[in-house]
Parts: sequence; structure tokens; C-alpha cells
Amino acid sequence: MELLNLDKLREQLIRQEETIIFAMIERAQFKQNQAIYQSGSIEITDHSGSFLDYLLQETEAIHAKVRRYTSPDEHSFFENLPDPVLPFIEYPQLIKPNNININNLISNIYINEIIPIICSGGDDGNYGSSATCDVSCLQAISKRVHYGKFIAECKFQEKPDLYQRLIQARNSDGIMETLTNRDVELNLLNRVRIKTAAYGRDTGVNKKSMSYKIEPETIATIYETWLIPLTKEVEIQYLLNQAGSND
Amino acid sequence: MELLNLDKLREQLIRQEETIIFAMIERAQFKQNQAIYQSGSIEITDHSGSFLDYLLQETEAIHAKVRRYTSPDEHSFFENLPDPVLPFIEYPQLIKPNNININNLISNIYINEIIPIICSGGDDGNYGSSATCDVSCLQAISKRVHYGKFIAECKFQEKPDLYQRLIQARNSDGIMETLTNRDVELNLLNRVRIKTAAYGRDTGVNKKSMSYKIEPETIATIYETWLIPLTKEVEIQYLLNQAGSND
Repeated sequence: MELLNLDKLREQLIRQEETIIFAMIERAQFKQNQAIYQSGSIEITDHSGSFLDYLLQETEAIHAKVRRYTSPDEHSFFENLPDPVLPFIEYPQLIKPNNININNLISNIYINEIIPIICSGGDDGNYGSSATCDVSCLQAISKRVHYGKFIAECKFQEKPDLYQRLIQARNSDGIMETLTNRDVELNLLNRVRIKTAAYGRDTGVNKKSMSYKIEPETIATIYETWLIPLTKEVEIQYLLNQAGSND
Repeated sequence: MELLNLDKLREQLIRQEETIIFAMIERAQFKQNQAIYQSGSIEITDHSGSFLDYLLQETEAIHAKVRRYTSPDEHSFFENLPDPVLPFIEYPQLIKPNNININNLISNIYINEIIPIICSGGDDGNYGSSATCDVSCLQAISKRVHYGKFIAECKFQEKPDLYQRLIQARNSDGIMETLTNRDVELNLLNRVRIKTAAYGRDTGVNKKSMSYKIEPETIATIYETWLIPLTKEVEIQYLLNQAGSND
């Protein structure tokens, strides 16, 4: 297995912050539009789930065809997607084989916790646009959270003996403590505040009201309450599941 | 026909600037990857066009199903898309019926002119990610440019006699001159420079090099050289084609 570099992984996570913040700012221009999350609220021919489910599943079907989910850093929300129409490519094996996928949890948190704090309540009828933004948000969050696999593998490689001991003892709390670098997390929270302030400002347009499209503190809260813990959840699952096969 | 409000339309265009700038910044993280634009460069089962064509057409097929192209402010790049799976809805008639669609021209300019100035040359293999960003860029540009129909209708309503005279004389130059508000354009260019400087900055991350993901002047050039003229092209086509039916 090739070696991972924690600085390079962090660069990737930092770049992904923009994608996540841009996607949430785009979603925030529309109201919550709860109808798109409720099965049956919007009548769709031959489909019984929600409108978002429909759009997400159809989008994943195309992306599966262009080989998105053969990449080890991509995870689909739906199963039974079509086969790729592109030739198979071999990726370097940077992490151990695994089937960890917490997209169901991500989807629940996104719809029930994140949407209510980034969008104002109510229904503006922009169902297609809102759900298109939701697909972008969910894909960006899923990618970020499942990067935990690479982070965990990298941290494991730095201290294999310590992690092996904790894993063999099934000591989840100990693993969590060892994984956690609070300075890195505080830096991250500060960075996403600054980014959201820059990207989410109504720049030069409405000079009277220096309002934000999303409050910087809201994005920091989303990272602290959900995105960081979900990433660590993936890290712990990866370590607990894979330690036996390290070679 | 209901009346249009130019200030409200301009608010929409201003909001769309963010979408266009965000999408271009996302695309700029990848190299040009010219292979995705060349027919046959990437082998796709049962498809003879380019990789981008494939992804765009498949994406439009889904969006057609969720009724995107029944909205008068959305225009597809491909024809013969599937029927909507959602019930039909009636939109208020704000503009006169027309079939104006300059997406072919937009697509050519995007691939041949815009991509080379926002992305560095070469191939990094990120075909799926790049083409996904391209779809977002093309959709955002197409929406902005075809908003020219609403702008033209609104300007016509403000000075119907003047425009009727110019249109009956097929005086394109005179129409162009009457449509053009250079102060508004200069304000726009200045605004997109400020926005790109805010959104495209590597905020708080790489403090050594205060570089931009895209130079503000590049986005201003794209607006001045292509997006504004293309929008005016739609305005002129709309006026020349529709004036006879005004009522």
C-alpha cells in the first residue's frame, strides 16, 4: 500500500470547504421547501419516494455511468446503480478495502438539521432549483465526511502500535481521543468563518445592509456539530473494521 | 401580459453572478482536460460525441423530467429530451412566445474561449469532476444570457414607440445603441471584479501567497467580451422576432 501524506490530505479538505460553502450559499437563496423532502408531496410518475430522492437517484445513475463511484473517495447514496460506460481504471490502493458508507446518516442530518438553519422557512415553489442545490450539498458533504477513511489510514500509519492496541481493546473512546487534534479543529472553524464571511457577503451590491447570505457562525456550527463528528465517525469505523488486515 | 420590472430583473442577474463565479472557480481547480471536449477521445459505450456532451445530455434528460425546461427562463442544449414526470404548471406570461436559443454559440465560446483562460493547460485526469463543473458553468451562463429576453421585453415596454420604429426599420445598430446602458455595464464589471476578489481569494489558508483561484480581471473580461454581448444578442433577436406580435 502507498503511503499517505497528512498535509496533502488536509489541503484536499481545505479545498473542499469552498465547495461545501458555495453549495450551501446557493441553497440558501431558496426557502426550505419541505415538500421536496416528503414522500408523496410532489407527485412523480412511477416513483414513490421524495422529490429529492428522485433527483438524487437519477443524478447518481448518470454519475455511476461516468465512473464516479469506482473512485475510492466517492460514495453513492443509492444502491443498484447502472454500470460505467467508460473503461475500468485502476486506482492506487491508498486505503484498505471496506464498505463503510454513512450517507443515510448524512442525508438525515442534512434534511432535518442543516436545511432548517441555512434556509428560511416556507415554500417559494423553486423545487427543481432547491433539489439541484441539495444534490450538490449532499455530494460535497459525503465526499468530505468519507475522506475520514484516508485521514484514519494516515494517522494509523503514523502511530501503528498505539492504534493497534486501542483497536484490539475495541476502545472507541481512546481511539477518538487519539484521533482528535483540537488545534486543527479550531483552525478549521476559524477558517470556515473567514471563508463564509468572504463568500457569503452581499459584496458591493446592497451597501445599505451589510448582510450575509449565510452567517459565518452558521457554517462554523455545521462543521463543529455535524461535519467534523461525522468525519470522525468514519475514521473510527474504518479503524475498527480494518485493523486486522493491516499489512 | 404582465409588466416586468427592470430593477427586479437586474437583481436576478446580480444574484446569478455569484452562481457563475462560484461555478468557474470550481472548474478552475482542474486543468483544461481537452479530452473531455473532443469526440471520440474518451471511449463511451453507444455514444459518439464528446464526454462533456454525454454528461450534459444525460443531465438535461433528468432535468427535463423534473420540468426544468418548461420554465421560460431555462433553455436546454440538447433537443428530444424526455417528457416531464411532474404535472404541468402554468407560468405567468411575461415575455412573448419565441424559440430563441443560442446555446450552441454559448457552448462553442465556453469550450474554445473561456476554458483556456480559466484553467491551466494540460490534463490531470479529473474528467468526471471537470465535466460536472462544465455542466454547472454552461447552465449558469445559458440562464444569464437568455435572461436577455426578459430584459428586452422590459426595455420595450418602457419605450414602445421608439423600439417599434427601430424594429420596423430592421435597424439592429440602432436597437443595440438604444439597449445599451454603458453605466450599468461598467458597474457590473466593477461588481464582478469585487466579487471574484472576495470569492476567489485563498482566504486565510496560504497567507504567504495572496493568490487568486481566478484573477478578478479574468471574470470581468469574460463578462465584457462574451456574456454581455451574448445577452444583447438575445435581446436583439427577441425584439426583431417578436415586435409584430406586441399586444
